[in-house]
Amino acid sequence: MDSCALPLIAELPHRLPPLQAASSRRRTLAIGLIGPGRVGSVLLAQLRAAQERLSREAGLELKLCGVAASRRMWLDCDDPELNARHDCAQTWRPTDLDQFAAYIRGEDQRHAMLIDCSASETVASQYPYWLASGLHVVTPNKVASSGPLSRWQSIRAASHHGGRFRYEATVCAGLPVVQTLRDLLDTGDQLLSVEGMFSGTLAWLCCQYDGKRPFSTLLREAHALGYTEPDPRDDLSGTDVARKLVILAREAGWPLSLQDVAVESLVPQHLAELPLESFMERLDELDEPMAERLALAHGEHGVLRHVASLDRDGHAQVRLHVLPSSHAFAHTRLTDNIVQFHTQRYRDNPLLVQGPGAGPEVTAAGVFADLLRIAESLEVRA
Amino acid sequence: MDSCALPLIAELPHRLPPLQAASSRRRTLAIGLIGPGRVGSVLLAQLRAAQERLSREAGLELKLCGVAASRRMWLDCDDPELNARHDCAQTWRPTDLDQFAAYIRGEDQRHAMLIDCSASETVASQYPYWLASGLHVVTPNKVASSGPLSRWQSIRAASHHGGRFRYEATVCAGLPVVQTLRDLLDTGDQLLSVEGMFSGTLAWLCCQYDGKRPFSTLLREAHALGYTEPDPRDDLSGTDVARKLVILAREAGWPLSLQDVAVESLVPQHLAELPLESFMERLDELDEPMAERLALAHGEHGVLRHVASLDRDGHAQVRLHVLPSSHAFAHTRLTDNIVQFHTQRYRDNPLLVQGPGAGPEVTAAGVFADLLRIAESLEVRA
Repeated sequence: MDSCALPLIAELPHRLPPLQAASSRRRTLAIGLIGPGRVGSVLLAQLRAAQERLSREAGLELKLCGVAASRRMWLDCDDPELNARHDCAQTWRPTDLDQFAAYIRGEDQRHAMLIDCSASETVASQYPYWLASGLHVVTPNKVASSGPLSRWQSIRAASHHGGRFRYEATVCAGLPVVQTLRDLLDTGDQLLSVEGMFSGTLAWLCCQYDGKRPFSTLLREAHALGYTEPDPRDDLSGTDVARKLVILAREAGWPLSLQDVAVESLVPQHLAELPLESFMERLDELDEPMAERLALAHGEHGVLRHVASLDRDGHAQVRLHVLPSSHAFAHTRLTDNIVQFHTQRYRDNPLLVQGPGAGPEVTAAGVFADLLRIAESLEVRA
Repeated sequence: MDSCALPLIAELPHRLPPLQAASSRRRTLAIGLIGPGRVGSVLLAQLRAAQERLSREAGLELKLCGVAASRRMWLDCDDPELNARHDCAQTWRPTDLDQFAAYIRGEDQRHAMLIDCSASETVASQYPYWLASGLHVVTPNKVASSGPLSRWQSIRAASHHGGRFRYEATVCAGLPVVQTLRDLLDTGDQLLSVEGMFSGTLAWLCCQYDGKRPFSTLLREAHALGYTEPDPRDDLSGTDVARKLVILAREAGWPLSLQDVAVESLVPQHLAELPLESFMERLDELDEPMAERLALAHGEHGVLRHVASLDRDGHAQVRLHVLPSSHAFAHTRLTDNIVQFHTQRYRDNPLLVQGPGAGPEVTAAGVFADLLRIAESLEVRA
């Protein structure tokens, strides 16, 4: 390693004096939220609830400076006193992302962050400019991280010199997955493989499906319970799971895109294009193929699980697997997500993270944790 | 939330210019390692292996400036050119922690960190002074975090205004446990309970112990495999597990100490005080009580597991539990550690982390990850 010049011990003080410079860590972070939907509104509530504590305990002042919905943006939010000074026409404006970003960024050199809780391609396409301008960006959305590789690379390049970009909540919501992979790699470990169940819906269906009831009955039940997307094919296609795998693959350094993932859809071709109502009426056509897969699994004394996997060569696939009943994935609960990392250091036994991987509360918490991680790294500015 | 003054949109630039100020993130971190033992030497190897990459990719310059063993300290480490200019008597000195800290800290206002891989009370007692002086401290040792509460509190107070203090590797080595709990609490979640198996040795023994072979036979096997401490009673007593629980309890805000944890020792009183040889000869005296516990578990169609638990009222205990065979703790592998957090947000299904929780490689990696977390937060200094 590098080494330091070696002063004579005689020159060194015997006891170190307390450092004055470090005695204050007060930071202010201006925040603009884009997409005040289910996750966004829960996040706002979490931020408000934590604001006073963070100021007191961490010296972190969170300033919510704006909220932008798809059509309108509000630039002074929930400050009644300030709102009173403007009529609604003044405080609400048609949404203009450039103006919104410029407003959050502010005129001075303050720390500022945009939180994208939208699902918008238009918003994601702005990340590179925002990051290059020094704005930090945090998002639970998979659009940027699993979208076109070129855009992803320009985002990474911009964040390297500008603002910081974090997206923990894009994979398994609030579970520590992206950061855990990051830490493994940053500390010099080598990734051998990643396996995961990234769809709570398919995890629940696989856990419930024991052959006693037809698969279509369970699917209707999941649909009724709100476990599935409005169109269950959005879950069964495996595309959303593949997006999460692409995000982890890119994190691991593989320049993967969605089309590089071998995805097995559980929706037969002839049902894929139907209108939703017709598809729901013909759900029982899923039963025979699924029953065959289950019989195969039982024949091997195994269980059927929907698994996303990435190997050390960057090969990615999403499909039904037959796993031994002793496998960790055979024992997940309800709609739990689970991910395990095999690495050089975790070769015999993987590092495993499991828990609820969806829902506004835990997703917002994942975004919040990203916000705090960036806030930790902010320089003190007067 | 607080709100920002509202400029007229007309004043705002339409497109943000790239930020120049943030274009460089180069940081130098001076490091002093105390305790070049099994973990410490592996950590040095990991740091050396990552040094060039961290400089290139993260702009982080790691400077190893000193290593201190119990009797001697070396202040210019492995720089052959520099070593050549001093004879060994000059480069090696008797260990003096104050001088060592002062040397690592340096004369200028550089960033500096002490990594304590010793198991020394003397070293831990220095943390408050080091932190107050602006030195960062990272350690895998439980001495400070589970030791006297007053010292712990002075360490926390010092780290609040001075250097930063991290200790992820004190619980389950490299597994993300302390940081995960921190994130849950910092984002405003409320802890309902923590349960874990924090002893790889006891996890292995419980998994293996099915009644076919006496407990003492398995214990002798674990001892021969090197899974246990030289004196297996150090594992069976549950004290080390209790220390980890104290660390998590304090992280959660409970001012707990070791004596506050209700610990069930698996070593009968009459065997506790024996010399090691006599104890090893009389291991079979453990068999009858353990067989009774196992029969009890089987009677309830459950499994026997060694569990540390903390409830929402701060009650902490470490003991053998009978768990349903569907419980996540019933399916761990080999010497895996496992921990699950029940919180307000993870109430129905807990957040669960599992994997190898001991060994020099993963422990050093946990320390390394702490180092990187602190490095991320370092201000750029010329």
